[in-house]
Amino acid sequence: MQNFTNKLTNIAKATENVLSELLPDAHDNPMVAPIRHAALNGGKRLRAFLAVQSASLYGVDSAMSLRTGAAIECMHAYSLVHDDLPCMDDDELRRGKPTVHIKWDDATAVLAGDALQTLAFEILADPKTSPQAEVRVALIGSLAKASGAEGMVLGQMLDIAAENITTPLKLDEIKHLQAKKTGALIQWSAQSGAMLAQDAGIELIEYSTAVGLAFQIQDDVLDVLGNSELAGKRLQKDADSRKATFVSLLGLEQAQKIATSLVGDACDALASFGPKADALRQVAHFVVNRQL
Amino acid sequence: MQNFTNKLTNIAKATENVLSELLPDAHDNPMVAPIRHAALNGGKRLRAFLAVQSASLYGVDSAMSLRTGAAIECMHAYSLVHDDLPCMDDDELRRGKPTVHIKWDDATAVLAGDALQTLAFEILADPKTSPQAEVRVALIGSLAKASGAEGMVLGQMLDIAAENITTPLKLDEIKHLQAKKTGALIQWSAQSGAMLAQDAGIELIEYSTAVGLAFQIQDDVLDVLGNSELAGKRLQKDADSRKATFVSLLGLEQAQKIATSLVGDACDALASFGPKADALRQVAHFVVNRQL
Repeated sequence: MQNFTNKLTNIAKATENVLSELLPDAHDNPMVAPIRHAALNGGKRLRAFLAVQSASLYGVDSAMSLRTGAAIECMHAYSLVHDDLPCMDDDELRRGKPTVHIKWDDATAVLAGDALQTLAFEILADPKTSPQAEVRVALIGSLAKASGAEGMVLGQMLDIAAENITTPLKLDEIKHLQAKKTGALIQWSAQSGAMLAQDAGIELIEYSTAVGLAFQIQDDVLDVLGNSELAGKRLQKDADSRKATFVSLLGLEQAQKIATSLVGDACDALASFGPKADALRQVAHFVVNRQL
Repeated sequence: MQNFTNKLTNIAKATENVLSELLPDAHDNPMVAPIRHAALNGGKRLRAFLAVQSASLYGVDSAMSLRTGAAIECMHAYSLVHDDLPCMDDDELRRGKPTVHIKWDDATAVLAGDALQTLAFEILADPKTSPQAEVRVALIGSLAKASGAEGMVLGQMLDIAAENITTPLKLDEIKHLQAKKTGALIQWSAQSGAMLAQDAGIELIEYSTAVGLAFQIQDDVLDVLGNSELAGKRLQKDADSRKATFVSLLGLEQAQKIATSLVGDACDALASFGPKADALRQVAHFVVNRQL
């Protein structure tokens, strides 16, 4: 596991470096500081890790997959900046640092998120991401589907709606919500390697569906059990708001059991790749063992 | 001119139809109504007109250029929904109808804008927009540059900043701000036809730069002279906020003179196309003669 932790840290650092090169940095542009604050946040870079490792299954050059990873991290960062806004989740802290609307203001946060979304597509459209235009548009088209009104944005909208209803959501509804809100981008990340290699990547579809759901169950577990100082953000938000979660519906033990079983499914899906998929198996385990 | 007005109306209708097909419409998706409210707003569709007419110079099929037009109208609609938010321009009316955050709420408006931006890229990534992947990524990459942290978003940020400074902007600073805020998307629209045809489109670059600036000068003129009932939005905002505008710096007469002269430049730039560029010449005149 030490080996895995090193790998995760190294790819996070490499992603941060690639991002730092790709983010705007003109000294006279007032968007630069808020955008860099939002995107260079020292996160785990789980999505970039999935992008890089799935690409390595097919022998894709990491210079390309790190750019794909940087693009998905921009998309993820945009969603966090907007989710943190007072009109959404109203969060003041993100990874222990003030959120963009706290450090600047709401207008700056809306615009920084907007620009980060745009940048994700700009990175993918660049020939440096893949010499083949067909590959680039496939990445762009699928990322747009995963992020838009039928993907991540829908998930966020359903999540907000869930706070304003008196009947708590049922398990299927939570699964649907989470598949959109968090699952879609995680799935895209893990499938991007196959797209870079122009492979159908059936195994990765199965793998990433299981990992995405396990990730969200563990998020709910951590919301109850986690250490908010360690997490650098407010926890117990869902319990406080009496929102239905995997944990409230299944109980803690059962939720953890299902998450562990999903990790098994995810690993099984990669069987045909043999040991070269070990990093993807390890990250699946990491997803349900993480403490933040 | 009757002929031109018909053409403008027809392309606006065709754009509205294409948009209506492309926008989400699942009955159980809560994003559908706010997104359709924002995008199907009965606007003039000036940007789509520029896209379609520039493409027709090169004999590009209008099924393709109307999709390009629909994409730019999604991008434009996203920017309006976000600009109208209370933390930005705080506008309650847009084309005589309640803005998204008034009809729904701020969170819905943030998300509807987000999804409309995503949709713009999704439309362009689809092979129906052009059978050549190279063309689609060129459209996507250039639209991202025009819209992001060094384009439209920067312009909006500079515009907000201009409201909070005591020294009014100088003419060059306003030109820079407006070239980003409105100019970038107008230029992209008028150049998209050349991109669809894989032509450098030097004439369209010159044309669209002049038209973009003329457009913004006329916006400032209308802010002073216009009829807010006709415009369906609040006017005299800039005068009320004592913000520097082309009109406040140049005077009304001089501003109108410059706008007219820019229209001359725009038309001259199209000389080599002969009469087949007449619609683009007419729309340049329309830009400075419009009443809303």
